Amino acid sequence: MLSVHDFIKEALSEDVGTGDITTLSTIPASAAASGKFIAKEDGIICGLEVCRDVFLYVDPAVLFEINYDDGVQVNKGDVIAVVSGNARSLLTAERTALNILQHMSGIATRTRAAVEAVKGTKAKIVDTRKTTPCMRVLEKYAVKCGGGSNHRFNLADGVLIKDNHIVASGSITAAVENARKNAPHTLKIEVEVENFEMLDEALRVGADIIMLDNMSVEDMKKAVIIVGGRSITEASGNMGDKDLYEVASTGVDLISIGALTHSVRAMDISLKFKVK
Amino acid sequence: MLSVHDFIKEALSEDVGTGDITTLSTIPASAAASGKFIAKEDGIICGLEVCRDVFLYVDPAVLFEINYDDGVQVNKGDVIAVVSGNARSLLTAERTALNILQHMSGIATRTRAAVEAVKGTKAKIVDTRKTTPCMRVLEKYAVKCGGGSNHRFNLADGVLIKDNHIVASGSITAAVENARKNAPHTLKIEVEVENFEMLDEALRVGADIIMLDNMSVEDMKKAVIIVGGRSITEASGNMGDKDLYEVASTGVDLISIGALTHSVRAMDISLKFKVK
Amino acid sequence: MLSVHDFIKEALSEDVGTGDITTLSTIPASAAASGKFIAKEDGIICGLEVCRDVFLYVDPAVLFEINYDDGVQVNKGDVIAVVSGNARSLLTAERTALNILQHMSGIATRTRAAVEAVKGTKAKIVDTRKTTPCMRVLEKYAVKCGGGSNHRFNLADGVLIKDNHIVASGSITAAVENARKNAPHTLKIEVEVENFEMLDEALRVGADIIMLDNMSVEDMKKAVIIVGGRSITEASGNMGDKDLYEVASTGVDLISIGALTHSVRAMDISLKFKVK
Amino acid sequence: MLSVHDFIKEALSEDVGTGDITTLSTIPASAAASGKFIAKEDGIICGLEVCRDVFLYVDPAVLFEINYDDGVQVNKGDVIAVVSGNARSLLTAERTALNILQHMSGIATRTRAAVEAVKGTKAKIVDTRKTTPCMRVLEKYAVKCGGGSNHRFNLADGVLIKDNHIVASGSITAAVENARKNAPHTLKIEVEVENFEMLDEALRVGADIIMLDNMSVEDMKKAVIIVGGRSITEASGNMGDKDLYEVASTGVDLISIGALTHSVRAMDISLKFKVK
Amino acid sequence: MLSVHDFIKEALSEDVGTGDITTLSTIPASAAASGKFIAKEDGIICGLEVCRDVFLYVDPAVLFEINYDDGVQVNKGDVIAVVSGNARSLLTAERTALNILQHMSGIATRTRAAVEAVKGTKAKIVDTRKTTPCMRVLEKYAVKCGGGSNHRFNLADGVLIKDNHIVASGSITAAVENARKNAPHTLKIEVEVENFEMLDEALRVGADIIMLDNMSVEDMKKAVIIVGGRSITEASGNMGDKDLYEVASTGVDLISIGALTHSVRAMDISLKFKVK
Amino acid sequence: MLSVHDFIKEALSEDVGTGDITTLSTIPASAAASGKFIAKEDGIICGLEVCRDVFLYVDPAVLFEINYDDGVQVNKGDVIAVVSGNARSLLTAERTALNILQHMSGIATRTRAAVEAVKGTKAKIVDTRKTTPCMRVLEKYAVKCGGGSNHRFNLADGVLIKDNHIVASGSITAAVENARKNAPHTLKIEVEVENFEMLDEALRVGADIIMLDNMSVEDMKKAVIIVGGRSITEASGNMGDKDLYEVASTGVDLISIGALTHSVRAMDISLKFKVK
Repeated sequence: MLSVHDFIKEALSEDVGTGDITTLSTIPASAAASGKFIAKEDGIICGLEVCRDVFLYVDPAVLFEINYDDGVQVNKGDVIAVVSGNARSLLTAERTALNILQHMSGIATRTRAAVEAVKGTKAKIVDTRKTTPCMRVLEKYAVKCGGGSNHRFNLADGVLIKDNHIVASGSITAAVENARKNAPHTLKIEVEVENFEMLDEALRVGADIIMLDNMSVEDMKKAVIIVGGRSITEASGNMGDKDLYEVASTGVDLISIGALTHSVRAMDISLKFKVK
Repeated sequence: MLSVHDFIKEALSEDVGTGDITTLSTIPASAAASGKFIAKEDGIICGLEVCRDVFLYVDPAVLFEINYDDGVQVNKGDVIAVVSGNARSLLTAERTALNILQHMSGIATRTRAAVEAVKGTKAKIVDTRKTTPCMRVLEKYAVKCGGGSNHRFNLADGVLIKDNHIVASGSITAAVENARKNAPHTLKIEVEVENFEMLDEALRVGADIIMLDNMSVEDMKKAVIIVGGRSITEASGNMGDKDLYEVASTGVDLISIGALTHSVRAMDISLKFKVK
Repeated sequence: MLSVHDFIKEALSEDVGTGDITTLSTIPASAAASGKFIAKEDGIICGLEVCRDVFLYVDPAVLFEINYDDGVQVNKGDVIAVVSGNARSLLTAERTALNILQHMSGIATRTRAAVEAVKGTKAKIVDTRKTTPCMRVLEKYAVKCGGGSNHRFNLADGVLIKDNHIVASGSITAAVENARKNAPHTLKIEVEVENFEMLDEALRVGADIIMLDNMSVEDMKKAVIIVGGRSITEASGNMGDKDLYEVASTGVDLISIGALTHSVRAMDISLKFKVK
Repeated sequence: MLSVHDFIKEALSEDVGTGDITTLSTIPASAAASGKFIAKEDGIICGLEVCRDVFLYVDPAVLFEINYDDGVQVNKGDVIAVVSGNARSLLTAERTALNILQHMSGIATRTRAAVEAVKGTKAKIVDTRKTTPCMRVLEKYAVKCGGGSNHRFNLADGVLIKDNHIVASGSITAAVENARKNAPHTLKIEVEVENFEMLDEALRVGADIIMLDNMSVEDMKKAVIIVGGRSITEASGNMGDKDLYEVASTGVDLISIGALTHSVRAMDISLKFKVK
Repeated sequence: MLSVHDFIKEALSEDVGTGDITTLSTIPASAAASGKFIAKEDGIICGLEVCRDVFLYVDPAVLFEINYDDGVQVNKGDVIAVVSGNARSLLTAERTALNILQHMSGIATRTRAAVEAVKGTKAKIVDTRKTTPCMRVLEKYAVKCGGGSNHRFNLADGVLIKDNHIVASGSITAAVENARKNAPHTLKIEVEVENFEMLDEALRVGADIIMLDNMSVEDMKKAVIIVGGRSITEASGNMGDKDLYEVASTGVDLISIGALTHSVRAMDISLKFKVK
Repeated sequence: MLSVHDFIKEALSEDVGTGDITTLSTIPASAAASGKFIAKEDGIICGLEVCRDVFLYVDPAVLFEINYDDGVQVNKGDVIAVVSGNARSLLTAERTALNILQHMSGIATRTRAAVEAVKGTKAKIVDTRKTTPCMRVLEKYAVKCGGGSNHRFNLADGVLIKDNHIVASGSITAAVENARKNAPHTLKIEVEVENFEMLDEALRVGADIIMLDNMSVEDMKKAVIIVGGRSITEASGNMGDKDLYEVASTGVDLISIGALTHSVRAMDISLKFKVK
């Protein structure tokens, strides 16, 4: 897996290619500049340290002042950060830095909206593995900054028996029993169920967590009552398009939303150089 | 820059981590399975070869049949592809493959809508460098599959003098003259202008392409008349939120839309195993 | 983290350097050879597929026949595998392949001995993170082949609050409560305790697993009674030097042994070419 | 081949995975801590700079004071080094740092014992290529710290004609003559012999170094007399289990011991945080 | 593509291998030294910053004073730079640093000669893609330092339809029309022609640049007249062996010379340590 | 160090960048083609397998027939190899493959000339470490194909005490004695001498090899007599510009020529597609 440092390296390499021809051919090597990152709309800012590290990767002598902590609400017109240093360095790093910052802020903003939507209920908003390839560390961090919680990071740090596992292993019972025998004892076992029959089987075999997948609100309500606290309950299935308060009101412990990370709307942020 | 092969490697490494515990602990090593990729909504499918390569990276013995060419419209319920082979391999590759396929198809779908919107005009829809870090090759390919055209790939293969370059180099004239002198003769020179004064300067200094940035439709119409075919014209600036037909009707040659790639809505596609 | 494929690449690069001068200067390019892997002592064989992959990395045309499954007992004199192909390829891959095979078989052999020692009790033998850097995947696999079970793989897939965490966070209670709030809900929480006071606190705060660290057998016996099934219990602390049956007889669920992987004695195996 | 820097990177990546969940969820980001590395048994300490570099890789602001030079004898209870800085950084680096330090110190300790065993003779203790994959630089350094000498590093920097080379090339004479013709003139030529006939052939063809493989002490004594200073002599073959003084007394120049690096017993060292 | 930083890393790794044995075994770890880079012949110096970075990669504490800017003429006996610091570091970096410096200076020197040869004409000297693999960034920089201009960097940042493309696509017309339709609008289109028929076709289809390949001076003269300023003209084909002034006198805009980078003569430069 | 496989990967990545725009935009995906590699001048061909591997890296389905073994003389007009397959693949790989093939053949050709020049003497032509960074394996192979021999590969596999080592260590005697004590016993010790005083010292301290650096032919003759067979002798110092037969006639064992690899003239070879 790419470290964040290597992700920045690859992202810059992708955008700069064999050299920033426009900048190299138009800006003197010794020119200095400074610019402001300005919010062009309201949102939850997230990713400022990564953004800074993009500039520092290009040129360790760049100065980058951060005006807001990640996870804080900014409003249209706010100066989020100020960057200064060699003009070529700033111009070369600009787009890569913004691409990351706008993406992460977009996730934090959407997550915050979901968290606000379930206020007053006990439901936590959690993410999924439906993330942008190579950006999971940053995206899960953005979910936390938005006020959400993280589900398992990858296939190694959680047991989640889904529809296709059940088909391939024969039954929920077989799958759970094998997981309990073969997986490290440090992991809880989660089972995805689509109806009450599956729910009963999952409860009988002692699943630690039960995912209620694509159930109606009515059915989820019943399911939570049936579970009766014996397992953690998680609502799932196109939650990005649902009325989250209604879902939360069923009493589920968790609502997992793939759209937080698979359908991101970048937050509008720009970098404006100051005329010297 | 990551090759597509290395991108798949890193994406899988990120999602699989130290091993797919659920699958390894619940599915026998010798179990076989097969599944169908099903469109859960209408859209333009894109990325099927990359999707296949994810499975082949995990297990070269997997069979993957593609039912549609990239760039083709599929409808809800269509079986896009069929995959079969070792059950563990299929389960381990599933999420990474879907994450890429859904993302690329989302881009192709949105691009197609934009292309349809300007039908009957001469305007081409083009992408930008506002792409997801490490996915630019795949995203620009998806734009092409959607019917759009590609702008420059990175900072090395096009000269585009933007606002901050103009600030840092002093004037449009200085910037263009330096670019003409120092950049390879194989590249055209594009200038971003925000008003008619800048437009005049760009035309006087002989810019090959002129980007009309954040202009009203009214002003764009005037600008196109002023340019009078001496340069290629490109409309730009939050084009994702504009009435594209109206913009195209100004007579611009190109409309560049950052949102095609910075604000992607994943197309809904699922993989369903068949019960044997 | 290095994949097994990359580990083989790096290991060969380390051993071959800029070329196997002895082989290149003394053996004709077209010479063929074959050789037998022979057990020079009794033990549990492990790592034959990795061993084969080392040869295949050097030369995909090498034939490698495996005579025993990983995890099987072999005796002095047994022919474990037979390799044949280009003589230069075999000679160049030999040492790297043997280094890995002997190391993994050493671990499997020692693990099997530990598993045999606790036969008749309910205790499982588990490994630790005291592994050889860059070999954890292979070493944890060898532990499984020896009949042991795996503890968490790394710092991301298990919560284990140890002495230094307790010092740094203030108390067991604070640490567990914070872990429950901040860590993914899919992970169990384990606490290391050194005395009965700590044990009481860990139980009160609801630890899922309790590690009894460096306790006397007498104290472990009492601890297991106090726990009374409310948590999983794990014996730990220089278990490599202890009477494992005695430890297991205290009723603990798990015995974790760092020495399985930090103090490996290579199993004696050699490769003998046949005179043609 | 991995540089030491890249080895540290990979080792940490293996152990930390996608993040040290326990530490991140239980320790405040701003907490400071300090701890002592304490010898839990007597031994030769080795690897303190690498150990320090692990901490610095995680966090360049960590302070690491080294109390002993590599290669020095420490006793049970000695404080070998003191580390201080951000508590999260220390906890995250701890295990990887210790794994390397304990392994290298184990090698130095065993090597020192072998060197002591042959004191008073002219024999030097040398290592082999039976090292842990990806750790050869560190392991050969540890052998030097223990007082041993290094044999060739890899297949490129020495000509050593072993049993399988002789089988594949036809004869000792053919092999040596080809090596002399084809290998760089800067390398000496060593031949492995198992009996007096082979010894005679190796001497006749002018081998620079002769390895006496798996000979009895009696035979080695005779062999040394036969060689009579014409070649360097090296005793080899399970030397880890032999009476080294007896072997050295035969008059051989070198004793090479694979077990120095293939069967390492980690030295017991722990890191204890101080309660603030 | 290797970054310059990674190129230095790989070059040092290649030359240093597992350690600079001569230096480590003969020079004390604490010895200091200083040395002068001396021109052993006249030439255009180029690559001093890369040369310095090689030393800094080995040891960040080395001091490296540069006496001349890249692209400046130096004469036999001039002290180009002075390096000082740890003696081991200097000795280990010396050869790799010189190999790069001498190669780049050789290119700059030859380019300068070509530029001088066409003085008084309008022709620019340009490079090609016939560069040393993995050194293109450095070689194209050396061409610029010598006074030349750069042609496209790679296959992605220029459209150049050569003989084999014409064969494979059917005709110049087909190739140019397809390029105009499918390639990014930011790139000019160049066509290689070998005779007047091809020249006519290239002009008719509107090629932006026309490469006159392997034409006689007489024919080039005619071709330039035929083109009449409608396209940029480029002379090509073993230009390294031609009378460049004569070629330039035909009126071509560009002369591209593969030999600038494919047949480099290293400039003679040495590093001499001062006796302390 | 880059493996040859990784060198090919990096070289292609450098030349192809983000895609071969010309080929992709002008040649149909399904077009087939074939072409001949033709010698445009006489020379020693070298590197055909690497050349083939470049094509196979781009497209494993390409067919590449080799007509001559590496090291064989080819004449102007000879068809060296024939390649066929997908037209896009051939066009994309062409330049990188030729750059390597022409460079290696240039080295083999020049080496052969040097070997021919000393025919009838006992002197061997050897290479140096003055190679092109990242190409040493290929360049040393080309020297062998040309009939030369290899000197040490890198700083790890030979002890060569040069002028700057002598300055830094104090004296030839000190340097040699330390090398004998600290370097692996498998390496010979070479000393560079510039005059008879140094020669005497090197002989007294028992150097295995003596490099006569920048001596006149007269002095070399005397030096060889003084050495009298006690050491191997190597002539060195701008040997690329010397009368090699005269140098060889002094009786030296080796003549090392940096120019073989630092001042390469590419052999002229082209790839011509056949019109179908």
